[in-house]
Amino acid sequence: MYPKNTWYVACTPDEFDSKPLSRTICGEPMVFYRGTDNRVVALEDFCPHRGAPLSLGFVENGLLVCGYHGLAMGRDGHTASMPNQRVQHFPCIKTYAVRERYGFVWVWPGDQAQADDSLIPHLHWAESPDWAYGGGLYHIGCDYRLMVDNLMDLTHETYVHASSIGQKEIDEAPVNTRVEGSEVITSRFMENISAPPFWRAALRGNGLADDVPVDRWQICRFTPPSHVLIEVGVAHAGHGGYEAPAQYKAGSIVVDFITPENDTSIWYFWGMARNFKADDQALTDSIREGQGKIFGEDLEMLERQQRNLLRHPERALLKLNIDAGGVQARRIIERLIAAEQAPADANLLARSGA
Amino acid sequence: MYPKNTWYVACTPDEFDSKPLSRTICGEPMVFYRGTDNRVVALEDFCPHRGAPLSLGFVENGLLVCGYHGLAMGRDGHTASMPNQRVQHFPCIKTYAVRERYGFVWVWPGDQAQADDSLIPHLHWAESPDWAYGGGLYHIGCDYRLMVDNLMDLTHETYVHASSIGQKEIDEAPVNTRVEGSEVITSRFMENISAPPFWRAALRGNGLADDVPVDRWQICRFTPPSHVLIEVGVAHAGHGGYEAPAQYKAGSIVVDFITPENDTSIWYFWGMARNFKADDQALTDSIREGQGKIFGEDLEMLERQQRNLLRHPERALLKLNIDAGGVQARRIIERLIAAEQAPADANLLARSGA
Amino acid sequence: MYPKNTWYVACTPDEFDSKPLSRTICGEPMVFYRGTDNRVVALEDFCPHRGAPLSLGFVENGLLVCGYHGLAMGRDGHTASMPNQRVQHFPCIKTYAVRERYGFVWVWPGDQAQADDSLIPHLHWAESPDWAYGGGLYHIGCDYRLMVDNLMDLTHETYVHASSIGQKEIDEAPVNTRVEGSEVITSRFMENISAPPFWRAALRGNGLADDVPVDRWQICRFTPPSHVLIEVGVAHAGHGGYEAPAQYKAGSIVVDFITPENDTSIWYFWGMARNFKADDQALTDSIREGQGKIFGEDLEMLERQQRNLLRHPERALLKLNIDAGGVQARRIIERLIAAEQAPADANLLARSGA
Repeated sequence: MYPKNTWYVACTPDEFDSKPLSRTICGEPMVFYRGTDNRVVALEDFCPHRGAPLSLGFVENGLLVCGYHGLAMGRDGHTASMPNQRVQHFPCIKTYAVRERYGFVWVWPGDQAQADDSLIPHLHWAESPDWAYGGGLYHIGCDYRLMVDNLMDLTHETYVHASSIGQKEIDEAPVNTRVEGSEVITSRFMENISAPPFWRAALRGNGLADDVPVDRWQICRFTPPSHVLIEVGVAHAGHGGYEAPAQYKAGSIVVDFITPENDTSIWYFWGMARNFKADDQALTDSIREGQGKIFGEDLEMLERQQRNLLRHPERALLKLNIDAGGVQARRIIERLIAAEQAPADANLLARSGA
Repeated sequence: MYPKNTWYVACTPDEFDSKPLSRTICGEPMVFYRGTDNRVVALEDFCPHRGAPLSLGFVENGLLVCGYHGLAMGRDGHTASMPNQRVQHFPCIKTYAVRERYGFVWVWPGDQAQADDSLIPHLHWAESPDWAYGGGLYHIGCDYRLMVDNLMDLTHETYVHASSIGQKEIDEAPVNTRVEGSEVITSRFMENISAPPFWRAALRGNGLADDVPVDRWQICRFTPPSHVLIEVGVAHAGHGGYEAPAQYKAGSIVVDFITPENDTSIWYFWGMARNFKADDQALTDSIREGQGKIFGEDLEMLERQQRNLLRHPERALLKLNIDAGGVQARRIIERLIAAEQAPADANLLARSGA
Repeated sequence: MYPKNTWYVACTPDEFDSKPLSRTICGEPMVFYRGTDNRVVALEDFCPHRGAPLSLGFVENGLLVCGYHGLAMGRDGHTASMPNQRVQHFPCIKTYAVRERYGFVWVWPGDQAQADDSLIPHLHWAESPDWAYGGGLYHIGCDYRLMVDNLMDLTHETYVHASSIGQKEIDEAPVNTRVEGSEVITSRFMENISAPPFWRAALRGNGLADDVPVDRWQICRFTPPSHVLIEVGVAHAGHGGYEAPAQYKAGSIVVDFITPENDTSIWYFWGMARNFKADDQALTDSIREGQGKIFGEDLEMLERQQRNLLRHPERALLKLNIDAGGVQARRIIERLIAAEQAPADANLLARSGA
C-alpha cells in the first residue's frame, strides 16, 4: 500500500542516456526516454501491437519505436505510425506525468488528472552553486515504510554503522519528534563529543581540525509520500553547534527519496548535498563512495526484517519514543492512502445501489 | 494449452549419447535413451520403486537401470528386473511413442493409441546429399505460440536483427498470407535491393558477388503442431529471384521446431538447411554460428513479451495484416486442441449421467 | 510433518564461534549464540522492537544485542535492556531448550515444558578417547524421511556410490529388519568378498592388508526422531566378521543426524566415528574428505526424487523387503506425530463444545 497520487523520484536522467529505461514504479511498469524537444517521457512499457516491452526499442525522431515490429509510439500514448499500417484506431497505452527537476526525474503514477507541478518539493540545494551533490541508487527488497522508519530513527547508526557514523552518544541523546502539517521532524543534538570517522574525514575535507571535541546534530525531515531529508553535521565544540558560523563546521543534507517498486521492494535514491568546498569534485566522489558503503550496510537488515514481518503479520511491533518519527510518518501516509481510496469506495457504494 | 496427440521434436540423438536425457515435453517429464537394438526409448522419468528420476541411471543390456536402487526398466514401461526382487506386479510407468528420423527424435506425448508414423512430416532436405544442415537448441520462457507468431511475421527482422538479416525493405514489402488445409503460408518478395550482411556472406560462401543488387524472398510455412519452415534466399537481381537458376542465388531453408515444455516455456530447435556447397563443413559451422547469434536476439524479447502478457491476460492485442500468419496458425492449433478435448468432454458427460 | 517434541541436532558449536547463527529448525527460525557462562542459547530470531533478525547482532556481556537499534535480549526471551528505554513490558520472544553435548548442539523445537535432557541419545563414541570423529553438514532440498529411507536401505550404495563403498554383493546379501521398541535395525552381512575402495583405504589406514578377502557388515539403527547410526566395517575373512578381534578389522559408525528445516528441506549432519588409530588426525581428515564426497553423491538424487514425489502425491510407491527399514521408521515417526497432535485435537473438541 502506497499513495499513488503524488510525485516520486523515478530515476536520474543518466539512466536513459543510451537507451530507454524500464522501471516499475508503484506496481506500474514504465518506460522512460527522452522524446521530442529533449523532454522526458514516461509511458506504460507495453506495445499495443503484441505486448512487447517498448523499453527494448529505440528513440527515433522523438518517438519511441518498438524493437519488435517497429510501431512508433507518441508521448501521448497514441501510436504515431507503423510501417504500412493505419494506426488511428490502435488502442492507447497509459502515460504518466513526468518532470525533470533538480537532477531527478519525478513521476506521478496515480490519477493523471491530479498531477500538479507545484507539489514537487523544492530542493534549494539542488539549484545553488554553493552546494554540491553526489548520490546513488539501491534496489532493496522491503516495504518503503521500513526505510522511512530506518531514516527517522538514527539510533540505528550506533549499531548498523558502528565503524563510520555511529557512536554511543546518539543512543544517549534524547530525541525530539514533532509534526508540522504533513511534515515530521525528529532531531538530536549531541554536545562536546568525539567526531566519528566519517565526520572526522569531512572536517579534514573542509580544512578543519578533526581531533577536537565537536557538537553534532541530526535533523530528519519526512515529507510525503516518502522523502526524508536529514540535516547532519558537526561543529567544533562551543561555537554554537548547528548555529555555528561556517568556518567552524562541516554539515550537509542526507537526501533520501524512497520510491515503491511494489509492496515489498523499493528504489532507494540516496545522496548527500553539502555547502562547503562545493567545487571539489574529488571530495564529492569520496563522500559518495563512503556514503554508498555506509548505506549499503542497511540492505541485509531491511530485507531480513521484511521477511520476518511477512512471517508474522499479526505481531504488533513496539513503538518507542525513538520510533515516533516513523510512527508519525506512517500516520500521514495512511491518511493519504485513505484519501485516495475514499472516492473509489464511494463509487463502489453508488454502483451497488447503497 | 497445446495439442498433445501429435509429433514434436524432443531432442537430437547426441543429447543422450553419453547418458540418459531428462526432458519435459508438453508437461510430461520424460527420459530418453538408446535401448535394445540401439533404438531410442522415451519413458516417464519416474522409477516405480521410490520415485527417483530414471534419467539419473544408466543403460545396461538395453535396459534403463535406476541409479538409486538398481531397478531395471524395460522399454515397455514394465520393470524387467531388480536384484533379489520379483517384479511382475510392479506398477508400470508411461511410455511414449518415439521415432528417430531426419536427425531428430520425435515424440508423441498424448494418447499413445493414436501415434501414427505417417504423421511425421517429410523433410526432403534431411535425406538428400545435396543438402547440408546445421542447427541448435534454445530453451525460452514463452508460450510456443509467441514463437510461431515471431516466425510467421518476419517484419521483426528489421528491428530485432537489424545488423544481420534485417532491412527496411522487409517492412515495405507487402506480405501475402494464405491457408492451404492445415498449412499456413506467408510470403514476401523484395526486388532489386541490397543484400544485408548475413546474405552477403552467404553469396560469398556460394562463390557469388555480394556487392550487386539482389532479389530476396521469404516463404514461411507453418504446419501443426508448431513447425515453421522458411524458404529464404537472395539471387542476383533480374535472374528470376526465387525461380532463378542455381548459379545466381544462395538460398536455404530456416528450420524451426517449437516444442512446448509447458505453458510458458519451449524447447526451440532452430537450424538452416542449404543446397549449395553442401560438403563445406566449415561453411555449415560458420552459418550455424551466425544463425545462433541472430536467433539468440529474440530470446529477451519473447520472454519479456510473455511476462507482459501474463500481467494483462485481458488485453486484446492487435491483429494486423502482418500478423495474419500467426493468427491463422493459432486457429489451426485451436482446432486441434478442441478436437482432442471433445472426446474427453463426451466421456465426462457420459459419466455424469447426462 | 515432523515430530517437534524431541531433540534435534541444530548445529555444531563452531558455527556460532564468531557470530550468532541463524538457522530454521522444524519451521522455527532460531538464533544460536553463546551467552552468559559460555552456555549455548537458542531464541526466536526476531527482535520484539521492530522485527529485525537478532542473528545480525552481536553478543555483549552474555546478552544478544540486536544489530539494528541495540535492544539487548536475555536468554529467557525477555528484553534485558535497551538504551534509554524501560523494557519491563516488552513482549517476550520464544526460547528453545538447547544443550551442547557430544560436540553437537541439540534443540527441542516443540512444547518447551516437555523438554527432557534424559531423552538426548547417549553417544558412547563421542565420550571415549578410543574413538575419533569427523563429519560435516549438508543442506538438502528433501523431506527428512527420504533421507531416512536412503540410510535404512544401503542397496543404494551399489548404484549411487559405485566407485567408493558400493559393490554388487550388497544387493545380493539378504537384509534383515527388526523393530525393538522405537528402534529399527536393518542389517546385512557379506562374507568372503573383495573390499571396495573406501574400505581398502580404511584397512590400510589401520595397518592391515587390503588385498585379501574380507567379511563386511552394515547394521543400521534408526532412532526417533530421525537419527540413523550405522555400524559398518570389514574384517579379514574367516576371523569372525563383525565379531572379529580388533587386529583383523577396520570398523566405524556412520553418524547421520537428519534435522528438518521445513517440509521439504533438511540439515543433514553426517560423519564417521572410528575406534582405530583415534589419534591420527590426518586419517580423520582423509576419511571425512572421502565421506563428504560420497555423501554428496546422494544430494541430486534426493532433491530430484523429492520433486518427482511432489508432482505425484497420489502415487503409492513400492515397499519391498529392502525398504522395510524405512517403512518401519516412518511408522514410528507417524506415531510420534499423532501423539503430539492428539492433545491439540482434544482441546479443539473441548473448545467446540463436543
